[in-house]
Amino acid sequence: MTAHIITVGDELLIGQVINTNVAWLGEQLTLAGVDVTEALTISDDQPVIEAAIARSWAVADLVVVTGGLGPTHDDVTREAVAGFLGVPLVFHQDVLDHVAHLFERFKRTMPESNRSQAMAPLGCEVLHNPVGTAPGLWFAGEHRGRKSALLVVPGVPREMKRIVADHLMPRLATSDSLRTIKHLTIHTLGIGESHLQEQIRDIVATLDPGQRLAYLPDMGSVRLRISSFAKTPEAANRQVESFAARVQERLGAFVVGIDQDVLEQAVGKLLMARGLTVATAESCTGGLIGDRITNISGASEYFKGGVIAYCNSVKSTVLGVSEEVLRHEGAVSEQVAIQMALGVRRLLDADIGLSSTGIMGPGGGTPEKPVGTVWIGYADASGAEAQLIETRRERLPNKQYASMAVLDLLRKKLLV
Amino acid sequence: MTAHIITVGDELLIGQVINTNVAWLGEQLTLAGVDVTEALTISDDQPVIEAAIARSWAVADLVVVTGGLGPTHDDVTREAVAGFLGVPLVFHQDVLDHVAHLFERFKRTMPESNRSQAMAPLGCEVLHNPVGTAPGLWFAGEHRGRKSALLVVPGVPREMKRIVADHLMPRLATSDSLRTIKHLTIHTLGIGESHLQEQIRDIVATLDPGQRLAYLPDMGSVRLRISSFAKTPEAANRQVESFAARVQERLGAFVVGIDQDVLEQAVGKLLMARGLTVATAESCTGGLIGDRITNISGASEYFKGGVIAYCNSVKSTVLGVSEEVLRHEGAVSEQVAIQMALGVRRLLDADIGLSSTGIMGPGGGTPEKPVGTVWIGYADASGAEAQLIETRRERLPNKQYASMAVLDLLRKKLLV
Repeated sequence: MTAHIITVGDELLIGQVINTNVAWLGEQLTLAGVDVTEALTISDDQPVIEAAIARSWAVADLVVVTGGLGPTHDDVTREAVAGFLGVPLVFHQDVLDHVAHLFERFKRTMPESNRSQAMAPLGCEVLHNPVGTAPGLWFAGEHRGRKSALLVVPGVPREMKRIVADHLMPRLATSDSLRTIKHLTIHTLGIGESHLQEQIRDIVATLDPGQRLAYLPDMGSVRLRISSFAKTPEAANRQVESFAARVQERLGAFVVGIDQDVLEQAVGKLLMARGLTVATAESCTGGLIGDRITNISGASEYFKGGVIAYCNSVKSTVLGVSEEVLRHEGAVSEQVAIQMALGVRRLLDADIGLSSTGIMGPGGGTPEKPVGTVWIGYADASGAEAQLIETRRERLPNKQYASMAVLDLLRKKLLV
Repeated sequence: MTAHIITVGDELLIGQVINTNVAWLGEQLTLAGVDVTEALTISDDQPVIEAAIARSWAVADLVVVTGGLGPTHDDVTREAVAGFLGVPLVFHQDVLDHVAHLFERFKRTMPESNRSQAMAPLGCEVLHNPVGTAPGLWFAGEHRGRKSALLVVPGVPREMKRIVADHLMPRLATSDSLRTIKHLTIHTLGIGESHLQEQIRDIVATLDPGQRLAYLPDMGSVRLRISSFAKTPEAANRQVESFAARVQERLGAFVVGIDQDVLEQAVGKLLMARGLTVATAESCTGGLIGDRITNISGASEYFKGGVIAYCNSVKSTVLGVSEEVLRHEGAVSEQVAIQMALGVRRLLDADIGLSSTGIMGPGGGTPEKPVGTVWIGYADASGAEAQLIETRRERLPNKQYASMAVLDLLRKKLLV
């Protein structure tokens, strides 16, 4: 069973909005055993949308369209679907009642333009949207000489997800044309793509034709994604897990974790396993390390909190960094990183203290300490140390890279 | 001048990686006056890539392909381009020298597989990649009965961006078939899409056919994007700025800012204009508010830092929140939010203190305080207050929403 995804919206093509719907839909469909062979993004233009649906309908078993169902004049997907099916739009009182109800609940009067959201192409099933005003649309059967299915959902991610979960996934679960696909991702850190390939060449050579391997590099890390196609879920699971076990054994500490075990999660598991708590003293990362740690549900088990010591006076008054060291070595220095880690460990009564101090840019660099210079610190009961890292990127990627380096330093310490 | 973007990679279709290249390329091309009419994502499959290039070449004036240029076996874009052009791959010694040089610089030996990156389709110009091993490819001219241009770049965003900036943008700047497009985005907060439309209906009615307006809703905010097509940059600028001025006057405080003036930036400008400093006391947002504030270059002018008071003992020992209040009211309460804001303001000697304390889920909810219950606090020289907000989303969107609410509370206080 194959699917095409069509995302509609000028904002996606001019780069105002990053298209996250394709990734979410791709993951859901893939997990359900559907092979997503194409994702197309087009503008809010009725003939273009109509033509794209027709082209996908001719080759895919399922066409998912997102976007263009809002109440405003630039939303024309409803009309395009009606055009593709060659039917008129008809009024649905129950949809209008739902829209009116939503406005009442928020104690607002319903604008006239929302009436357009109660119109649907004749013959389409209208799919209830409990979290928004635009319903989804479903059409399945023979049309233009081919049997396929069409799902149309709003472009707002939360509404799209809800309608897909409520109405598409149950339909897929009862389809019998599905094969089983299992994906597994191995997160590695600190080893380049080419060397990774060399290291595991003999293991990869043992993969059979029903298995595919991809290397996905991103800012100092490489993810390995292994996909197995098999007759049963058990067989597919067995294949990917056996591969992962061999790769993990070969790569050792280069492997951060599997699937959801991203760096934050891996660090959390190690801390819990050892019964240790951690606290952060962040300067250049501005709170990002704490943010990442607390993205993991249950982080309160091991994360006590932290101090964002963005200005120097906070470094000295709250964390106890020596004013003399700040003056002589500068805030971006080995000693300051060490004193910050020690200070936050003591202040928050944690087993481990972590720190970051650096220059994220675009301003603030000097010949001796250019943008991207970062000292990261670590302190525990046995002492403290700091490492110099260099990241030559833009401000936000620099913050990301520095926070990753701090979390990876913690991970390696916990692995020893 | 029209362009198609083709992004190659299984990881994009199965939802493992969110496609950010399309948004970046779309923005760059649009700013250069190129109309991006389609973005297509396909898998690492040579015949599929070849067919997609052929289809886009037949209709667009520029085809940009990203991805599939790595050294590993799943990278087949080079071969697909050679197939499309009907030419063999030829070896480039200068590219191999560059790759070898990069490996030397990092004191690593070059794996044999990297040799494939020195192969390029005959007749393509090879574009130097100073930040990675895979060069870009450029072909422009008559082929298959049509004149067009093809740019092929690596999928790694940093490498893609560098080659586009170095080699594509200068070529576009000298092209004379470009019209002028100007986009402007108005960020609004606290007003729904339909009501927004009603409020500015008469202003929108004055737009001429060369102007387009789009409503882009996202988690409590709506962005209005106005696009003007005109003969000169000055005329296009004038049109969008006149529209923005009228909308701002009508909507007042619902408008956060224009273009790059997202919430963090708008707040920063207000703080600087008033010469005030701010400090954060974060529980449920875990550092995200500080992270967002410090995403703005120059934040050190007004951001002193903060305390991430994730566990209750940090709330009391570091921020001075009363243990009795914590016991009787619970950590997620009006009084705790107020005491956190007061405490961090005092501790960090800032003009304004902000705070967040809530339940982000999926665990931790109770019937009285379900997941999504958040108290946010504000303190300044004249006193302190807290507000209850409710966000019924997943953990990460809950953190995003709560941090937005805190920053918007600060913005509104600064506007008074």
